[in-house]
Amino acid sequence: MNACPATFDEMRRVLRDLPGPDLDAQTEIVQRQAVLTKPTGSLGRLEEIAEWLGCWQGRAHPRIERPRVVVFAGAHGVARRGVSAYPPEVTQQMVQNFLKGGAAINQLAAAIDADLRIYELDLEHPTEDFTQAPAMSEERASRAMAYGMMAAEPGIDVLCLGEMGIANTTSAAALCAALFGGTGADWAGPGTGVSGSTLARKIAVIDEALARHKQAIDAHDPLMLLAAFGGEEFAAIAGAVLAARRGRIPVLLDGYACTAAAAVLHAIDRRALDHCRVAHRSVEPGHTRLLEAIGQRPLLELDMRLGEASAAALAVPILKAAAACHNGMATFAEAGVSGKT
Amino acid sequence: MNACPATFDEMRRVLRDLPGPDLDAQTEIVQRQAVLTKPTGSLGRLEEIAEWLGCWQGRAHPRIERPRVVVFAGAHGVARRGVSAYPPEVTQQMVQNFLKGGAAINQLAAAIDADLRIYELDLEHPTEDFTQAPAMSEERASRAMAYGMMAAEPGIDVLCLGEMGIANTTSAAALCAALFGGTGADWAGPGTGVSGSTLARKIAVIDEALARHKQAIDAHDPLMLLAAFGGEEFAAIAGAVLAARRGRIPVLLDGYACTAAAAVLHAIDRRALDHCRVAHRSVEPGHTRLLEAIGQRPLLELDMRLGEASAAALAVPILKAAAACHNGMATFAEAGVSGKT
Repeated sequence: MNACPATFDEMRRVLRDLPGPDLDAQTEIVQRQAVLTKPTGSLGRLEEIAEWLGCWQGRAHPRIERPRVVVFAGAHGVARRGVSAYPPEVTQQMVQNFLKGGAAINQLAAAIDADLRIYELDLEHPTEDFTQAPAMSEERASRAMAYGMMAAEPGIDVLCLGEMGIANTTSAAALCAALFGGTGADWAGPGTGVSGSTLARKIAVIDEALARHKQAIDAHDPLMLLAAFGGEEFAAIAGAVLAARRGRIPVLLDGYACTAAAAVLHAIDRRALDHCRVAHRSVEPGHTRLLEAIGQRPLLELDMRLGEASAAALAVPILKAAAACHNGMATFAEAGVSGKT
Repeated sequence: MNACPATFDEMRRVLRDLPGPDLDAQTEIVQRQAVLTKPTGSLGRLEEIAEWLGCWQGRAHPRIERPRVVVFAGAHGVARRGVSAYPPEVTQQMVQNFLKGGAAINQLAAAIDADLRIYELDLEHPTEDFTQAPAMSEERASRAMAYGMMAAEPGIDVLCLGEMGIANTTSAAALCAALFGGTGADWAGPGTGVSGSTLARKIAVIDEALARHKQAIDAHDPLMLLAAFGGEEFAAIAGAVLAARRGRIPVLLDGYACTAAAAVLHAIDRRALDHCRVAHRSVEPGHTRLLEAIGQRPLLELDMRLGEASAAALAVPILKAAAACHNGMATFAEAGVSGKT
């Protein structure tokens, strides 16, 4: 994509010029919902979802026929600090598992007939340990953003975003604390399954990083905080969210790490995630705090905490159902059904 | 079906002889879940669902390839009391809408490639107004149960149950109060959208019925309470749930009226709904109270309150995803992924 911006300044220009919702499509959808054969509002969030899809697809009859699922994989320098239940090499091993079709996301993407893309960032070169230095230079972060933008190709109906990266809930917790305030203990959780002294170490590592980057935090520049706490997959997700907005593609965000990455854009402009829905509430406790910070109510609550875009893929049938009801139902007049007494 | 029981005594015999879960399948599933390439428990309720499906299908590799969606439609004598936002004739008009493909459930069943069946009870002859007499005789109720049993045909992977019947949230609220205690105000809600004086009338009608049937309530015979408060579609749902248990078919229950019908069986035997999951939490307030009474946590919370098996159909992709992950994922050993450090 030639038009991909590749510096933070260019990204900021994109952010200043975000397209808004299609208000004509929205009006048409709201009017139609009111006359379909069901008590007013009885399809609940399916009605809200149809409206949201139509607004951002720019269509009075939204559709979910070409979903794409994207997993960005990144390698984290901070993984060396023993903050995860799994060794750092699991990131690359899981990428191989994705490519061979053996992971959860392969089954979930197949179940919704989605195009599944695995985007590896520079796995051979982990980011810096962010307790020692910024995880990424501005150049590396903006390059990863531009790489992520490629995921939002024209013709896709919905973009499901997710990630893989051992230690990335440590990165997510640090980034959230930097963006929204609080300490390591406020934002850290078990991740892949740590507890006791390992969880205590994870929290200490985050607090150490927050102290080291205090100057950047006080400067309130979300893109610089993205670079400070990483990882590359976070930057790629932020880029993909931006490119989807420009391409009129609604986005489903997966769990904690994915939502944290997108929250960087929300911290810059509160409308920047209006074309996104969070697919589920992760059991990772920081996710609930983050959902409150960005004002999103997730679609599913199934106690998941896997990542890999798993919950984003799982939420696609709900979008499909919302579009199907909206487009296919008869009106009271068409069906000859009596209205309210 | 020759073997369908057609009296309450025969139904009671069926209830005394319910098959249990397949514990061999369960053991195999739990052991496999532990070695699939994901942090332990990270698929959350998808893991629990795979285990539940396998237990009740009697298969270590559960499958959702042949879902059936069933809507039972019943006509309620109490509808004449003006407890609904819609006139009684809407029940038959909506059945025509189902048959012509214009309702929400038509779109939702098509979205999951399900076989959709509409079962009309005796719509030309509404049940009695249960403030005046039992809604149904024992004979009529047991005939409706036997009719409902036909929905659970062999070869179905999951049975999604729902209903249509103007005034049936009044019936559901009265039945719940009779089964679990409480008053009309505890169990009644807006239904199709009543409020103010209409809601007050709905509550008064329920309290009037509870007083009239006090003797039956004190006798604690759930099947007699089903006959007292109806409707026929409730009896049919209870029959379908029983037949599905005998046929090793897991069941998804829809919203308030459907769960209330199934709760009759739970009141007889607390294990009677172990092969069922409630698809969603309806916004009808009595549903939350009912879910607590029968100890079920629903799969979805999307603010729906339509009925028609709409949420049951919407939950099928979650079951399909759970089965797909369980059956298709690689183990750590197969994928060459390192385990916990």
